[in-house]
Amino acid sequence: MRIESCDTGSRLRTNSVSGVKSARIELMRVFNFSAGPAMMPQEVLERTQAELLDWQHTGMSVTEVSHRSKEFVACAARTEELLRQIMGIPENYKVLFIQGGGFGQFAAVPLNLTKPGDVVDFVLTGQWGIKATQEAKKFGVEVKVVADEKGSGYTTVPAQSSILPTPGAAYLHYTPNETIGGVEFGFIPETGELPLVADLSSTILSRPIDVSRFGVIYAGTQKNMGPAGMAVVIVRDDLLDRARPDTPSIWNYQKMAQADSMVNTPPTFSIYLLGKILEWIIEQGGLEGMALRNRTKAQTLYSFLDASDFYSNPVASDARSWMNIPFLTPAPDLNKQFVVEATAAGLTNLAGHRSVGGMRASIYNAMPQAGVEALIEFMKEFERVNA
Amino acid sequence: MRIESCDTGSRLRTNSVSGVKSARIELMRVFNFSAGPAMMPQEVLERTQAELLDWQHTGMSVTEVSHRSKEFVACAARTEELLRQIMGIPENYKVLFIQGGGFGQFAAVPLNLTKPGDVVDFVLTGQWGIKATQEAKKFGVEVKVVADEKGSGYTTVPAQSSILPTPGAAYLHYTPNETIGGVEFGFIPETGELPLVADLSSTILSRPIDVSRFGVIYAGTQKNMGPAGMAVVIVRDDLLDRARPDTPSIWNYQKMAQADSMVNTPPTFSIYLLGKILEWIIEQGGLEGMALRNRTKAQTLYSFLDASDFYSNPVASDARSWMNIPFLTPAPDLNKQFVVEATAAGLTNLAGHRSVGGMRASIYNAMPQAGVEALIEFMKEFERVNA
Repeated sequence: MRIESCDTGSRLRTNSVSGVKSARIELMRVFNFSAGPAMMPQEVLERTQAELLDWQHTGMSVTEVSHRSKEFVACAARTEELLRQIMGIPENYKVLFIQGGGFGQFAAVPLNLTKPGDVVDFVLTGQWGIKATQEAKKFGVEVKVVADEKGSGYTTVPAQSSILPTPGAAYLHYTPNETIGGVEFGFIPETGELPLVADLSSTILSRPIDVSRFGVIYAGTQKNMGPAGMAVVIVRDDLLDRARPDTPSIWNYQKMAQADSMVNTPPTFSIYLLGKILEWIIEQGGLEGMALRNRTKAQTLYSFLDASDFYSNPVASDARSWMNIPFLTPAPDLNKQFVVEATAAGLTNLAGHRSVGGMRASIYNAMPQAGVEALIEFMKEFERVNA
Repeated sequence: MRIESCDTGSRLRTNSVSGVKSARIELMRVFNFSAGPAMMPQEVLERTQAELLDWQHTGMSVTEVSHRSKEFVACAARTEELLRQIMGIPENYKVLFIQGGGFGQFAAVPLNLTKPGDVVDFVLTGQWGIKATQEAKKFGVEVKVVADEKGSGYTTVPAQSSILPTPGAAYLHYTPNETIGGVEFGFIPETGELPLVADLSSTILSRPIDVSRFGVIYAGTQKNMGPAGMAVVIVRDDLLDRARPDTPSIWNYQKMAQADSMVNTPPTFSIYLLGKILEWIIEQGGLEGMALRNRTKAQTLYSFLDASDFYSNPVASDARSWMNIPFLTPAPDLNKQFVVEATAAGLTNLAGHRSVGGMRASIYNAMPQAGVEALIEFMKEFERVNA
């Protein structure tokens, strides 16, 4: 299991006190640009580490405590309360913690919100929306793509005026941020009477959002909310009574709401870590603070890309993601070389998704401004040597 | 979120060097008898803690690394390989890591192995088997209970001769160990041509088992395999092609087998920790070593119960679980008092399941013999004071 080379992050390591690489006298952390699982706030990891064998003086790890214990029930309630407070979730919405990630919700949403034969509307701006349609089709619904940015190679978002919901459809689904293409909506689509369903996996908690505009928000946790293994589902309570009889119990929104997300044993460590991340967000100034931090990071990198003749980003200016920024050098071979050399310099996981290639910098909440600046410094040096 | 009292485990604390409770000069760990999430080996938690911010010199936490990184792909492959080696899993079986725990598999098994209208056989020895039938019924199968120990109050297991599989049924499902009642099979049922499906959640890895006797083994991880949030599924490869078209992709055995359990982002931390636990099992002498350890623990506690006029265990002698041992004092009020006082003495989570009351000692792999002995000492003292 040992990787052969221990040199990953060596550039950062030599920044340590003595410059002697073999003496691991301080913790070496890289800037991790992974699209998910992704970088977490170092403070959160340190706090978790400190109490990993004895949580809240219970003499147990949080991974070991019963989900029905008063300590853990309080922890889960506190995590939900913090999420409600930070996101401003209205009282008529339930917050659910469900196993299976965002992909699980691709199935759970049609199971909970449709009958066979219902029409469901989709707006497509990239690969994850397409995957969501493929999963929905399994459940006998009529998938209607009401807007599709295929023509631009999924580098644009549709105008509000071109999104025409189907009267009587069960809901309209869209992907506010497409992680692979780095394409993000600058607005929340108007859908009239239709419940709006959003896969917010890669942008939840990155800035304030008006939850009251949505019927269902779901998000895998592995980008802005901790490790992989859970989805957070925020569902308006008038949508709770529509589940098909054959919806698996642990994905049934109503049953999960009635059981405080404990129809089955919940992923306790994920709920605990989400709580820690929410506390960290409050320390950073809440979602206003995160928005400022994230807007600044994204603008810094886009400004550099726009001024460059060497690097390019294919996304339309009004559809650029704050979270995932793809970019290219002038040549495929140089892209590969870039990723290898960046990794050696402690800037990891910059390879683009295997379906598209190139590079992609995912700069979620936990990525500091210093990480973006280190990336830009590396990009300048790489250009100087290879242009 | 802070619990009001920090006295949990105080008896153990006063065993520390100076006996001064306020000075937390050494780590205080309790004996945790929780049925799941459950006690983990302390060595595993310590190793995890040590590398939580920098795993394998990547400069990243294992919770932060991409599931597609070469380090994590190697970690997942190594975890599977260790499980195969330790359990002796034949080559014609796939090993899958799936989100949703054992309860998710209550739905996933019928979705993967049946068509609507198929007969499925169940043997019932307790509450979890009953829950599995309730979930299976959602999917239009004919549930046939071929043996039901209701008559004994679920304190017995049926004889092999009374288990008569239905010709042509899709499979026969049983629960080798019922966690709530503490009822365990001493044999693997013969089912002829029918695939045998087992919910091994609370007994997997506790002793050697002949995997070749099974069609599907599934087990939630939160007892002998780490934190809650994942199921391990071991499926014979001739059963992979039967999934219904509307099986959610992340629960489709064939798709998951083809994708090395990465149809979606897997619960990376759970897979990593399972690997660490498997390494620990090897250090303990593998499943033979675990069996010796577990048999000894169970015999120690049952011998004490059998010799006692104060405590009792309701389970038939040939159906007693090695993992979950329920017991009672002569009076309900004394049971409650027992749980409270045991907790204060650092023996935690001894309350029986909320559906049955009384006490239950869950003594999974990670519980040392010393924990069982500490429990018995406490029981003796409690009896002396209260009998």
